[in-house]
Amino acid sequence: MSERRYDPTHDEWVTFATNRQDRTYKPPAAACPLCPTRPGGPETEIPREHFEVAVFDNRFPSLTTTPPEPDIAGTDLVPVEPAYGHCEVVVFTDDHDATLASVGTQRIRLLVDAWADRFAALAADPRIAYVLPFENKGEAVGVTLHHPHGQIYAYPDVPPRPAREQRAAAKHRDRTGRCVFCDVVAQETGGPRVVVEGTHFLAGVPPWARFPYEIDIWSRAHVGTIPELDAAARDDLARVLARVLAGYDAFFGIRTSYLLGIHSAPVGGSGPEADPTLGHLHLEICPPHRGEGKLKYLAGSETFGGAFLTDVAPEVAGPRLRAAAADVEVPA
Amino acid sequence: MSERRYDPTHDEWVTFATNRQDRTYKPPAAACPLCPTRPGGPETEIPREHFEVAVFDNRFPSLTTTPPEPDIAGTDLVPVEPAYGHCEVVVFTDDHDATLASVGTQRIRLLVDAWADRFAALAADPRIAYVLPFENKGEAVGVTLHHPHGQIYAYPDVPPRPAREQRAAAKHRDRTGRCVFCDVVAQETGGPRVVVEGTHFLAGVPPWARFPYEIDIWSRAHVGTIPELDAAARDDLARVLARVLAGYDAFFGIRTSYLLGIHSAPVGGSGPEADPTLGHLHLEICPPHRGEGKLKYLAGSETFGGAFLTDVAPEVAGPRLRAAAADVEVPA
Repeated sequence: MSERRYDPTHDEWVTFATNRQDRTYKPPAAACPLCPTRPGGPETEIPREHFEVAVFDNRFPSLTTTPPEPDIAGTDLVPVEPAYGHCEVVVFTDDHDATLASVGTQRIRLLVDAWADRFAALAADPRIAYVLPFENKGEAVGVTLHHPHGQIYAYPDVPPRPAREQRAAAKHRDRTGRCVFCDVVAQETGGPRVVVEGTHFLAGVPPWARFPYEIDIWSRAHVGTIPELDAAARDDLARVLARVLAGYDAFFGIRTSYLLGIHSAPVGGSGPEADPTLGHLHLEICPPHRGEGKLKYLAGSETFGGAFLTDVAPEVAGPRLRAAAADVEVPA
Repeated sequence: MSERRYDPTHDEWVTFATNRQDRTYKPPAAACPLCPTRPGGPETEIPREHFEVAVFDNRFPSLTTTPPEPDIAGTDLVPVEPAYGHCEVVVFTDDHDATLASVGTQRIRLLVDAWADRFAALAADPRIAYVLPFENKGEAVGVTLHHPHGQIYAYPDVPPRPAREQRAAAKHRDRTGRCVFCDVVAQETGGPRVVVEGTHFLAGVPPWARFPYEIDIWSRAHVGTIPELDAAARDDLARVLARVLAGYDAFFGIRTSYLLGIHSAPVGGSGPEADPTLGHLHLEICPPHRGEGKLKYLAGSETFGGAFLTDVAPEVAGPRLRAAAADVEVPA
């Protein structure tokens, strides 16, 4: 079962992939499917003894290029369709015990190239409207495979959250004639919430942070997607991201759990939500930590209201994270 | 600090309440602030030796009727305003170790009356646009006070999720002339996803369930809010809800964790999102469980895409939950 069903009460699609119920769940390190295939060891997903960055199709995908016919017939009220799309796994180290914060700036630079290559390849599929690279990091956010890795999903439409960004950007452009993210960069540069100032990218706690220690990384230039970045901009993104992640670990004193997502311009679709000129490349990084040993949970107000509550002021979180990121030694 | 900031990149408000950082965190049972005040014991929030249902203002509110001036000045890009609203606590038993599933149908019937009374009182505040009763249940969803209780938030605008429902309902009405929830009730009644069939309310796994074992409880009649329900409808809601919750515990074999929210017609606000005739009373109950010992986490696709992935078919979950709810003995 790999199908999408339309929720007419929220005007959204929900994806069902029942094969994922059987996905690999917290395997012991010796059975890790993302480790290299070593002589005499088990055959893993990666048929190499060593690698730097490896990308392959998710064995338990939510979206696939060959979805079966849906289980149930759709109705006029609840249309159902095969869940077309791509789900890729991006492994960025062959070291089972590393993290993206520990692999070093050079490796993150290579990862930026891998994101760019895969983004371009997935965007070239005419049935794809939106490409979302992300990383779920740590048990606190539910990770079931500990070997450090990210994922890339390619959706057949612009999903609800990016669609909301597109509508918000259109509203701002209608009102001011400008890109809302360009205005955010102009407002935040040099301000109290900045965490790392790069030449091409700016990292800061957004004034409206939904998570107490959320950091967004905005392209300073109005660029829609990673493939459009030149070498200097990619170098800078790698440096800024490496410092932000190392700073988190220094600040929290642990291997920080987080969700990281990259929002880009849509690559297909129709209607105002698909306007690629509205898209402005940025990363959002959301650790679930709200204090020592305390996690932020999305509860009643967030789930049923969509109304986020935060209990740390961005003007407090920003300087804390900036100090941690400034002092930390970032692995090369 | 109790303020709302506008996120211009998502066209949403986020609430900051830094006093909540100090809120009571998993106190021992002997120091429970929601237990009755017993002779010789500590003074709790409830100055009675016994009670059935108690409602009072949250001591650590996110929204308040007397918010201080904001910490920072807003800008044209990111307006900031005091976080006006109400946050109430609803304790529905004086038994520290009970649950809503265990207190019995009669107590839930009283709770329905309490919801109705408080809804009407909060809706009467001309600055309130939306009233959201909810319950966060269990450590798996981050509950910090174990004594069984729910909450009611009253917002100064229609928050993002109900606003999305209102727009979806308007879209459906424009297309068909009918209420989308009335159409859902007509489609689901007697079908494979029904869990409990009441006379006034229908409980079922929605065909688009975002959580594997989500159950929604829809009013059969096009009613907007709990205060509008007559005694027979309130009786039925109490019976259906009691059986649904008892069924969960029987099915999972544990005290089920869940988020429960009640969506109603808006009571204020402006624009199409505020049209009260679009609202159709329903409850959404979302347990985080996806299998034995396994939790569903909202990760990259949900957080950055707003695109939900589910790995249990509603046609599988529905019959399982219906069988559990049919067989269970529901406390009177």
